[in-house]
Amino acid sequence: MLKSHLKSKRELIDSKIEFYLNKLEYPSIIAEGMRYSVLNGGKRLRPILLLMVLELYGKDLKLGIPSAVAIELIHSYSLVHDDLPALDNDDYRRGKLTTHKKFGEAEAILIGDALLTHSFSIVADETEEVSAEKLLKIIGMISRYAGINGMIGGQMVDIQSEKKKVSLETLEYIHTNKTGKLLKLPVEIGAIISDATKEEYEALEKYSELIGLAFQIKDDILDIEGDFEKIGKPVGSDLELEKTTYPSLFGLEKSKEILKEVVQNAKKALEVFEKEKITMFIELADYIAFREN
Amino acid sequence: MLKSHLKSKRELIDSKIEFYLNKLEYPSIIAEGMRYSVLNGGKRLRPILLLMVLELYGKDLKLGIPSAVAIELIHSYSLVHDDLPALDNDDYRRGKLTTHKKFGEAEAILIGDALLTHSFSIVADETEEVSAEKLLKIIGMISRYAGINGMIGGQMVDIQSEKKKVSLETLEYIHTNKTGKLLKLPVEIGAIISDATKEEYEALEKYSELIGLAFQIKDDILDIEGDFEKIGKPVGSDLELEKTTYPSLFGLEKSKEILKEVVQNAKKALEVFEKEKITMFIELADYIAFREN
Repeated sequence: MLKSHLKSKRELIDSKIEFYLNKLEYPSIIAEGMRYSVLNGGKRLRPILLLMVLELYGKDLKLGIPSAVAIELIHSYSLVHDDLPALDNDDYRRGKLTTHKKFGEAEAILIGDALLTHSFSIVADETEEVSAEKLLKIIGMISRYAGINGMIGGQMVDIQSEKKKVSLETLEYIHTNKTGKLLKLPVEIGAIISDATKEEYEALEKYSELIGLAFQIKDDILDIEGDFEKIGKPVGSDLELEKTTYPSLFGLEKSKEILKEVVQNAKKALEVFEKEKITMFIELADYIAFREN
Repeated sequence: MLKSHLKSKRELIDSKIEFYLNKLEYPSIIAEGMRYSVLNGGKRLRPILLLMVLELYGKDLKLGIPSAVAIELIHSYSLVHDDLPALDNDDYRRGKLTTHKKFGEAEAILIGDALLTHSFSIVADETEEVSAEKLLKIIGMISRYAGINGMIGGQMVDIQSEKKKVSLETLEYIHTNKTGKLLKLPVEIGAIISDATKEEYEALEKYSELIGLAFQIKDDILDIEGDFEKIGKPVGSDLELEKTTYPSLFGLEKSKEILKEVVQNAKKALEVFEKEKITMFIELADYIAFREN
């Protein structure tokens, strides 16, 4: 059930990303580079989370489509910049050449900048039937969660932590910010659009924080146990970079136990909602923890 | 009169930039890098233009301060990324080490990203007493003017045009977008906040387009005739990069004539306003055309 749900939502998101990005024409290398970087077979987990919250409240999905696409553009730009020679220096992502390998380094920097910049126009200019007050709140949140106190902050500390043993506190800062904030963001935006009560908002926030953590622990585990064909990047790259991870701090078996506990807590966080309404959220938590890529 | 006006406005803007950026603490290399990149003795022409429009309408400057600061952050991020080794590979800007020379290349990419991202939070979260509808319009405009159909587009075509002779049409595309859009932006935002009439809006828009063009022609001229001490970068870098410029297309003398004409037209565009109200705009047009740095 979850699989077909994810697939249909992924197709919806992909078609909307194409719709917005196909409007862009010139300079063609930027327009093509933006499409290349975003339309890459990604899981669309972040946009799907936003749509799932809207569905929980019976809202029209179109209210959240521009925000969902914007978040995916920001996620993509962060990968384009992370892959650059000065950062992770990766040649492949999901089995395809990274953006700078395909288009050149200067071009990739500008393509990333363009994705980030354009995401705000999509929210501000393309959203219909959401009040300006709500959109302003959403835009402020996107900016904060993606910026120095969010994703970029996490990315910076992650870079600084390479080749050294870091504390659990630092590792948690990295996870909370580098990956966590961009997973919380769509859930909170969905809750804002849907006028969630304070109690529901906090429940959704907690759920998103915990699946974000689960996502990251699972990523660390996949880096050790994963299959190159499935994860689309070399196994063991964390080890090579001497990165501190959950397995390096706690060992592999203990990390798997922590993962299970985190997933249980994520599910528990949603007890405020009727059980039959949150089936998809429950299945998604398991999917994140037990995925193979 | 203009000089003291520019100075007091520059000081106001600098204090507001400091106010907003001093709120940022961690990761300290990003926070410090953002301050280093923005608080660099810049002319603050873009924010000042926004404040001048508010003054023209007798509006409280605080209505536009967050937008003015945001535009300067975007201007600064674009310089940080332009200076990178993969792009212009500049070691100095305004006589100081460029951001990547000071903080490292990966760091400079993220510092630029953080400046761009944070600018939207400043507008969305920090503006008081401007309606959400207007702010949404402003945010959409910032995103469009700074993105693929604006500054980034111009920057990309500029890079593609190095080491080749380009047409006047391409040169105009570069100028209109790379520098022009970010000079139009504050003027239009000022007009939106001030509820300018359609006629006034178009007059201000035309003025900003023409001083943007004048700014660029003057830049091209300074690259030939300027003084290193004053412009803070090596003279003749356009020649070295075999860039097409106004002087390379029209010769130096003809370029100066074009510059004069453009400035005249900029002043004429504002005839819709009472003469005594636009003294500063008239003086600014001359300043842009006849500045030494």
